[in-house]
Amino acid sequence: MDDDVWDVVIVGGGTAGLTTAIMCASRKLKTLVLEGGVWGGLPATMYPSKVIPNYPGFPEGISGIELVRKWIRGARDNPHIIMKRERVLKIEKGGVVKTEENEYHGKTVVIATGTRPRELGIPGEAKFNRKDKGVYYYVTHREKFIDNRVLVVGGGDTAVDAALDLVDLAKEITIIHRKDRFRALDENVHRMEQSSNITILLNTELEEIKGTDKVEEVILLNNKTGEKKVLPVDMVVLAVGLKPHTEMFTELGVETDDRGYIITDRMQRTNVEGVFAVGDIVKGAFRLLIVGAAHGAVASQKIYEYIRKPYWAGEDEK
Amino acid sequence: MDDDVWDVVIVGGGTAGLTTAIMCASRKLKTLVLEGGVWGGLPATMYPSKVIPNYPGFPEGISGIELVRKWIRGARDNPHIIMKRERVLKIEKGGVVKTEENEYHGKTVVIATGTRPRELGIPGEAKFNRKDKGVYYYVTHREKFIDNRVLVVGGGDTAVDAALDLVDLAKEITIIHRKDRFRALDENVHRMEQSSNITILLNTELEEIKGTDKVEEVILLNNKTGEKKVLPVDMVVLAVGLKPHTEMFTELGVETDDRGYIITDRMQRTNVEGVFAVGDIVKGAFRLLIVGAAHGAVASQKIYEYIRKPYWAGEDEK
Repeated sequence: MDDDVWDVVIVGGGTAGLTTAIMCASRKLKTLVLEGGVWGGLPATMYPSKVIPNYPGFPEGISGIELVRKWIRGARDNPHIIMKRERVLKIEKGGVVKTEENEYHGKTVVIATGTRPRELGIPGEAKFNRKDKGVYYYVTHREKFIDNRVLVVGGGDTAVDAALDLVDLAKEITIIHRKDRFRALDENVHRMEQSSNITILLNTELEEIKGTDKVEEVILLNNKTGEKKVLPVDMVVLAVGLKPHTEMFTELGVETDDRGYIITDRMQRTNVEGVFAVGDIVKGAFRLLIVGAAHGAVASQKIYEYIRKPYWAGEDEK
Repeated sequence: MDDDVWDVVIVGGGTAGLTTAIMCASRKLKTLVLEGGVWGGLPATMYPSKVIPNYPGFPEGISGIELVRKWIRGARDNPHIIMKRERVLKIEKGGVVKTEENEYHGKTVVIATGTRPRELGIPGEAKFNRKDKGVYYYVTHREKFIDNRVLVVGGGDTAVDAALDLVDLAKEITIIHRKDRFRALDENVHRMEQSSNITILLNTELEEIKGTDKVEEVILLNNKTGEKKVLPVDMVVLAVGLKPHTEMFTELGVETDDRGYIITDRMQRTNVEGVFAVGDIVKGAFRLLIVGAAHGAVASQKIYEYIRKPYWAGEDEK
């Protein structure tokens, strides 16, 4: 393939990015996908073994990793797609995409950067959130947690799932949530409450993570009583939500909300000519894999129309 | 199940209606689906054997009928769903749904009525479009077409697919299109052009269908030259697009465009309290099965929030 100008440069190799790529390729568009992290996005990193219950087509559910492997294989096997593991630094007007290593030119650009776990920004977090020093944003290598004292922070499904996922492995688990109830599947909250190995502290916030070389203890604040307490733990899992990946398009001029989510029309077009956005980075998009996949299908059609300009372009939008 | 009040009454049993039902049921909502025609919608009637190339999750493609069977089976096997084959006459405010036989009450109503083939409205059409008199809107029972002279009307993929589908069965095929080129997959148009059994007439319109008891001939008009001609045929396939099923909600007050497509927000809510719309009936929705399935997933979540009112309702919309 000629590297000079791509029909489509897709920034992000999660569900929405890869399904966009596969559908563009089925229309014989010359497609480049760039991913700086892990192919497959959040299901591949944060919850590979979790069963996705709400992807229509797989009534018995399908694991996140199985589903994203379909996209990865589909893209790899396609002669119209090149996948490159390069981190995108900047997307500029006119279809210029700069990575750490290269500069690419696309007739169209698709932003599929999605979200990543949010940091808490508390003292100690940055010191211990790398190289297995004890702070994690999700549970990946479960064996690391064996026989450790674990603090899970968060009140959503991710936090509750993490606590339940570790219940038979960890020495003891404490889960704290700043509100007075969980925002997670009732049956899972119930399972947590029944477990003798999980301590639940509501109205509780994490103030600080302490230790010399690794995590040793945490300072917890009860936000009702103002009481603080020290809890000795070995590992902390911060499951406190997601935030959009926005760094690479801050100067591009795409319209976003104040948190960085991109505003598109129903055809996945942004306000910038030739720039589309798909998946979790899109404002108001419901964050489900099926929605990202649908974005990919729609965007690819509109990209095809934008590039090839068939006489019927836009007819489907009526 | 108690028939008095349903959590959800879904009008229409195609992809969007059934996936909405399955996902509502997975949230244990008491769900009723009403379908007056064929379960599975257009893929089940118009193109059962056609491979759906753009449903992410099935990289080798999946036939329309296989895909809709998944929804049908999923709904049938679910204890929270009742499927009834009843034609809906009217949806009224307050969640009242009237069929030919019954009246149902839902806390929410989902309009998933989709589209159906458009009629041409020309002389002779209404006389022959029933009971195998020779006018069809799509090809179902291919064996009927064996050794017959067939006229296909239309310029889109449905028309081109119909002509190709019949090429080895029919005695001879004529395809006419009112414009000067087809709006269909290039490779299929090329295959048609190569076929010795298909005659292509562009800039040509169907004016009238004639016959005594069955179709015998058609009057064609060349819209460039004004020339008319009589073509003897046995069967006519009118593949001239789709129109929305709107009869049952004209008085409900849901906002639509001037053709009847329903305007929703990205969470599939209409302007009428408690009334949602999903699938091809939604204005601006790209008409793909994957989009209908995504609508179902999103709507079910919003229906759950609307009915159960958990404290986190609406948080995903930020």
